[in-house]
Amino acid sequence: MAKETLDDLQNGFFIYQDTDNFRFGIDAVLLADFVRIKKADTVCDLGCGTGILPLLLSARHKGLKVTGLEINERSADLAEKSVIYNGLSDTVRIIRGDIRKAGELFDRQSFKVVVTNPPYRKAGSGEINPDSGKAAARHEILVNLSQVLQAADFLLASSGRLYMVHRPERLAEITAGCAENHLAVKKMAFVHPKAGKPASMVLIEAVKGAQEGMQVLPPVIVYDEEGNYTDTVKQIYDKA
Amino acid sequence: MAKETLDDLQNGFFIYQDTDNFRFGIDAVLLADFVRIKKADTVCDLGCGTGILPLLLSARHKGLKVTGLEINERSADLAEKSVIYNGLSDTVRIIRGDIRKAGELFDRQSFKVVVTNPPYRKAGSGEINPDSGKAAARHEILVNLSQVLQAADFLLASSGRLYMVHRPERLAEITAGCAENHLAVKKMAFVHPKAGKPASMVLIEAVKGAQEGMQVLPPVIVYDEEGNYTDTVKQIYDKA
Repeated sequence: MAKETLDDLQNGFFIYQDTDNFRFGIDAVLLADFVRIKKADTVCDLGCGTGILPLLLSARHKGLKVTGLEINERSADLAEKSVIYNGLSDTVRIIRGDIRKAGELFDRQSFKVVVTNPPYRKAGSGEINPDSGKAAARHEILVNLSQVLQAADFLLASSGRLYMVHRPERLAEITAGCAENHLAVKKMAFVHPKAGKPASMVLIEAVKGAQEGMQVLPPVIVYDEEGNYTDTVKQIYDKA
Repeated sequence: MAKETLDDLQNGFFIYQDTDNFRFGIDAVLLADFVRIKKADTVCDLGCGTGILPLLLSARHKGLKVTGLEINERSADLAEKSVIYNGLSDTVRIIRGDIRKAGELFDRQSFKVVVTNPPYRKAGSGEINPDSGKAAARHEILVNLSQVLQAADFLLASSGRLYMVHRPERLAEITAGCAENHLAVKKMAFVHPKAGKPASMVLIEAVKGAQEGMQVLPPVIVYDEEGNYTDTVKQIYDKA
């Protein structure tokens, strides 16, 4: 039976989550840290879940206008509850809907920034979690990478920026998919669980309509040899 | 005036180079370390210059059959001289010719491994060095990335491996170009000049006919805070 928790984000905000549903992880925390926000930027979070990215971004950038799009009713309920609880109703809105129908829900080029922590795994790969919300957050059951990138292309204004966290194993698909959707990957940072281990995540900044030519930023190492967070990651959590 | 030097590779072998022409750098040393060689592999080095990769690979893998293809006459002369000097004439051969004409020079699928340290920069980008050999080694004057990958595809046997060092800024082009030429990038390692600095090089392993899905290996950091080689790089040079 789902138990609802109200977790302290240690940044002034709290988030409602279910114990047995998808709960935010370090992916979202690192992505929020990776996102660059400029003055007057408007942000759309494609598949916002229970709203972790809107909350983290709102904490870091006071007054930021963020729209979270979420198809899962229960996650959207929790996201809305968190928005109200944190007094963010004036700047953060949660829209219920399908990323694949972004073209019907929003105007073309209506955001300067799109953020997304999409499902990492192809549908049918690995074990599918029987709980549908959790499964859809992890596997490309309701939306796939190509559809997320199509939506980003539609939503982003010229020179708008997409920020995404994904798995390095899909990097070739990511760069090709971005190119097909007028997005040039300009920055990447790889996240390694430990020094000396292969990367487990990649953080991506792609710019709409930009020339190709990317920069690979210094890697983020999550744990030190003792299994504690590295100073870099501790600092990111402190900012979160 | 060109002065010829005979440099000790500290691995039992020596290399002839010109003082004022292209001289091998850390790129070749890191690439040689990155290359995996299996029993009975045959190797082709596309654009071998003065033969640094054939020499480094021969030192690491006794008896390895390596073919170096080089269009610059002077570089090929020096490479041949080094092959003879080091007593490698039975296993290493230098072929004079154009990478773009690999199809006329070799049989299709005649190598298990292709290695290449191609020119990094597009023709016309940045300053072109007036010395033509040096310029062609740095800029895509005589051959471009796409042509190198076409040649690799032609030369590699099924499941054969391409090892390449290149610039991270061209990563999207590299993964797309590989995919167009039946090569799936399976492994990458980024080389950062210092911890905390963007990557300056990327080492790539692509496998012919393989499924997509790549692994990003731990980064290689070249210099420590004092500007000395890191232990990792020292060990690589010691093996070289």
